[in-house]
Amino acid sequence: MDRIWFPRYNDDSAVRGRSVPGAPASRVAKKKVLMLAQTAMLQWESVLEPENVITEREPLRAAATATFHVDQRIPAILRPATREQVQQALRIASKFGVPVYPVSSGKNWGYGSGTPASDGCVLLDLSRMNRILDFNEDLGYVSVEPGVTQGQLFAFLRSRNSRLWIDATGSSPECSLIGNTIERGFGHTPYGDHFGNVCGFEIVLATGEKLETGAARFPGSPAAPVYRWGLGPSLDGLFTQSNFGVVTRMTFWLMPAPEYFQAFFFRCDEDEDLPAIIDALRRLRMSGTLRSAIHVGNDYKVLAGMQQYPWKETGGSTPLTPDQMGAFRRRMNFGAWNGSGGLYGTRAQVAEARRLLRRELAGKVSRLQFLDGRRLALASRFSGLFRLISRWDLSRALELVRPLYGLLKGQPSDRPLASAYWRKRTPPPEQLDPDRDRCGLLWCSPVAPAEGGHAQTLASLSSQVLLRHGFEPMLSITLITERALICVISITYDRESPGEDERAMACYAELQKELSAKGYIPYRLGIQSMGEMDAHGPYARFLEAVKRAADPAGILAPGRYEAVRVQTVGDSRTGS
Amino acid sequence: MDRIWFPRYNDDSAVRGRSVPGAPASRVAKKKVLMLAQTAMLQWESVLEPENVITEREPLRAAATATFHVDQRIPAILRPATREQVQQALRIASKFGVPVYPVSSGKNWGYGSGTPASDGCVLLDLSRMNRILDFNEDLGYVSVEPGVTQGQLFAFLRSRNSRLWIDATGSSPECSLIGNTIERGFGHTPYGDHFGNVCGFEIVLATGEKLETGAARFPGSPAAPVYRWGLGPSLDGLFTQSNFGVVTRMTFWLMPAPEYFQAFFFRCDEDEDLPAIIDALRRLRMSGTLRSAIHVGNDYKVLAGMQQYPWKETGGSTPLTPDQMGAFRRRMNFGAWNGSGGLYGTRAQVAEARRLLRRELAGKVSRLQFLDGRRLALASRFSGLFRLISRWDLSRALELVRPLYGLLKGQPSDRPLASAYWRKRTPPPEQLDPDRDRCGLLWCSPVAPAEGGHAQTLASLSSQVLLRHGFEPMLSITLITERALICVISITYDRESPGEDERAMACYAELQKELSAKGYIPYRLGIQSMGEMDAHGPYARFLEAVKRAADPAGILAPGRYEAVRVQTVGDSRTGS
Repeated sequence: MDRIWFPRYNDDSAVRGRSVPGAPASRVAKKKVLMLAQTAMLQWESVLEPENVITEREPLRAAATATFHVDQRIPAILRPATREQVQQALRIASKFGVPVYPVSSGKNWGYGSGTPASDGCVLLDLSRMNRILDFNEDLGYVSVEPGVTQGQLFAFLRSRNSRLWIDATGSSPECSLIGNTIERGFGHTPYGDHFGNVCGFEIVLATGEKLETGAARFPGSPAAPVYRWGLGPSLDGLFTQSNFGVVTRMTFWLMPAPEYFQAFFFRCDEDEDLPAIIDALRRLRMSGTLRSAIHVGNDYKVLAGMQQYPWKETGGSTPLTPDQMGAFRRRMNFGAWNGSGGLYGTRAQVAEARRLLRRELAGKVSRLQFLDGRRLALASRFSGLFRLISRWDLSRALELVRPLYGLLKGQPSDRPLASAYWRKRTPPPEQLDPDRDRCGLLWCSPVAPAEGGHAQTLASLSSQVLLRHGFEPMLSITLITERALICVISITYDRESPGEDERAMACYAELQKELSAKGYIPYRLGIQSMGEMDAHGPYARFLEAVKRAADPAGILAPGRYEAVRVQTVGDSRTGS
Repeated sequence: MDRIWFPRYNDDSAVRGRSVPGAPASRVAKKKVLMLAQTAMLQWESVLEPENVITEREPLRAAATATFHVDQRIPAILRPATREQVQQALRIASKFGVPVYPVSSGKNWGYGSGTPASDGCVLLDLSRMNRILDFNEDLGYVSVEPGVTQGQLFAFLRSRNSRLWIDATGSSPECSLIGNTIERGFGHTPYGDHFGNVCGFEIVLATGEKLETGAARFPGSPAAPVYRWGLGPSLDGLFTQSNFGVVTRMTFWLMPAPEYFQAFFFRCDEDEDLPAIIDALRRLRMSGTLRSAIHVGNDYKVLAGMQQYPWKETGGSTPLTPDQMGAFRRRMNFGAWNGSGGLYGTRAQVAEARRLLRRELAGKVSRLQFLDGRRLALASRFSGLFRLISRWDLSRALELVRPLYGLLKGQPSDRPLASAYWRKRTPPPEQLDPDRDRCGLLWCSPVAPAEGGHAQTLASLSSQVLLRHGFEPMLSITLITERALICVISITYDRESPGEDERAMACYAELQKELSAKGYIPYRLGIQSMGEMDAHGPYARFLEAVKRAADPAGILAPGRYEAVRVQTVGDSRTGS
């Protein structure tokens, strides 16, 4: 056991970080908590079996790697297989005051991957808990554990010949459904607002106690997988973007495949066209004609989806300037802004939606194309010929279009993730792993009303900041609901390039600062930006009180979406 | 001040009720808390002006009146006009340990009207806080105070020539929007699940502190009225069906009027037809063809909507038996089950929805009718002629159809409320007031998956129980979401009839018990049924901890959706 290294006990440097709250003051105290941590390790080994308590240097280092620089160190990884083991593991953590950080699949790329928000947390890796616990074709739901990935659920539904679709993020098939939903992530179908389409959480508190939410807290209630609010206070929201508990089960609603599906793609040639397009899309969403999350990406975003940085054409200089970008997009036939979305329904419903979309976007976009499965198959086979028929060059775009088309139908793809390799000098490998491959990626994602003016402000503000710092402003704007949009701004770079980590973080900080000054809040935080929680006053006091109730020892995910630092190790409450 | 009567301090009988937790043990202690209460009264008068601290016997008696027997007594009514006054009033309540129960409009008919869940609570009547604080036509939202009623908002939108619709409950134009949403009530349009379409709460805690939820906690955030989840834990759910705080502002999303609207009405002749209809409707909801809450009422429900109890035809005997009911429905031309819903969109979208509805309901219903504004106007003018054209007798049904048609467009109506007068011997008055007029009404409202089998079970179980107890089983089944239905069961009676209050409550208790035995939970509780919360174990402990954080003195709405009784007056923490 003596090779285990608990940074916050062994190492004075840990005291400097914002992430180390109650660092022990004296050598004696330090020795005491170190002993406690070692005892916790022994108990975890006895509960989980030694092979599921990982302390080897290499996996620990890999787990503490993100797509940007992190200082956090991970002393051990626990890999429970069942909810009961999670309960036992957390009881031990609470008893000995050892901080624990749960991750589902650890694929939180751009926001910290699988790295804890604080230094010195033992990682609670839930990926072994990958059972699909319940499934109902008629009512359209599935209940899963945190290790279940979108790819796994997709395959499961296929194997059942199910007519149900999942909603997938554009991240990777390996992403956890629960992990993404807890972060309030989103996808592309009518069920795109993930947290808006789930219910019946099972939660393990830091004390080891089990909670269930909604109707699920009533044993045998038939409403459990279908009715969200339950009876009495609705608690689901408390356990998203928080550190109040470990979600060990969630029910996801699934949409039935429509009789007919058609994707649409549009583009405009000038940045100034964006506001009118956003307003038009909002009206179509509010009227119910568009039912899904609509994504609009700028030229940089599209180019990064199609290829890596044009090192040759630019002679190696960065960033790619707007003028250079303009030349690329004209040559490669895409727009300043490029949108995609899905039309779902019967053929007549889709035809009417198409008519309305055409009517609303007329004069605002330079091209609007529709694509269904038959046309896509045709295009794939005869992409040259297709160009003659449709006057639309699919040959190059097809590679970008196909995964997008799939995402609109809930088919997960890791293709969008390849853009994390944008600034790399070597091509993306077969198995994408941006952490391992030292891709630099920082996501900043403000939310705003779905109005043209706000879209324009977000786009121009972030473009200026990124270009000023030497990065390409890759932006995608998603109409996540009828009224709100989320702008995901990617700072994409090569971590191998000396100084880039620091420059990227400086860029991120300035971007965040400028957005905050205008009142734009992020819809989600990375482990590097938890300070944006900006909780104070009665709000912070209330959250702290909830935290004390849920986690009296303060051991769960310290620093994660937290109001004010909660005392953890070294606190007088622990170890007594 | 000496005429003010605080039951829990003056009266030993109060100690018996479940609603009096920390009743003082000794005469001296009693005198002390009474003194505290009197001091609180003086301070409230100074903060609110004496005319807004009501202690006259008659209004207190009226406020403690519901549509069923209640024992609760109200020592005083506070009528704050602003959020600041609510803060001051609650600070005083906390300081002196006087329990306070907030009501918005007090129109919670069938669930307790404006009566607190516990005896001896000072009523915090928020009806004077009736400002519309913000309104945005393009983004479709309005921010209101708790005193704003659905009728008021409807009139406001009319006066602005707004194209936005509200979602109204079938209760009364005088109902508070916030009050209904906090109870998680529902209406008839695509925004029918009220709590699903709100955001940005402002809350006053019992300590007098102000909280804001979602993006609204960030001053000046443009996302505040449009983005629900905010950043960090989402708290909205905690403040619905709870006693954690007083909601003093909420933002409601409003749907834009569609280009075209058509209502549909259908019926079936046999009880056995119900399951197939529910399954068909669920499929139509899940496919997105039906976008709104669909209501299906049984024959008793329809008859009570059209007229009072047929005293003459039955020779005064009750209940109306199924055989008698069958004769009525054949004579008056309605079904065993009768459904209504709305189709919203362009003419083509509505036409396609109509086709799909026809296809799904074919062979399952005996009649399916569509109605738009033109046809309704025509019918009103030529109801006799209309019958010839459409072969559908609107002459009698028109009175029932018109308010329903309006509700499907979000127009509030008090017409459905008239059915509370079902068993009265005199006609409903011009101004409906079921409390004052001693209408008996108890609502029991289980939630279940939107499946035919569950609908059938709920319908037959509740029909049997009600008839056995001598009441007509008036049932309405609402497909509140794509996957869930709520069955509202009305026990409707005449409180003037000796012994009926007791018989109705006994019927309610048995109904609730039988539903619970099958796992059906209520979607909402009346003040008489808070015990159904059935909270225990870690869930209860967690709620209690949140309660302590939000309301350390335990003065806010004791007994309301509460896990376990919280100590209030007489508790050692208070008055110290």
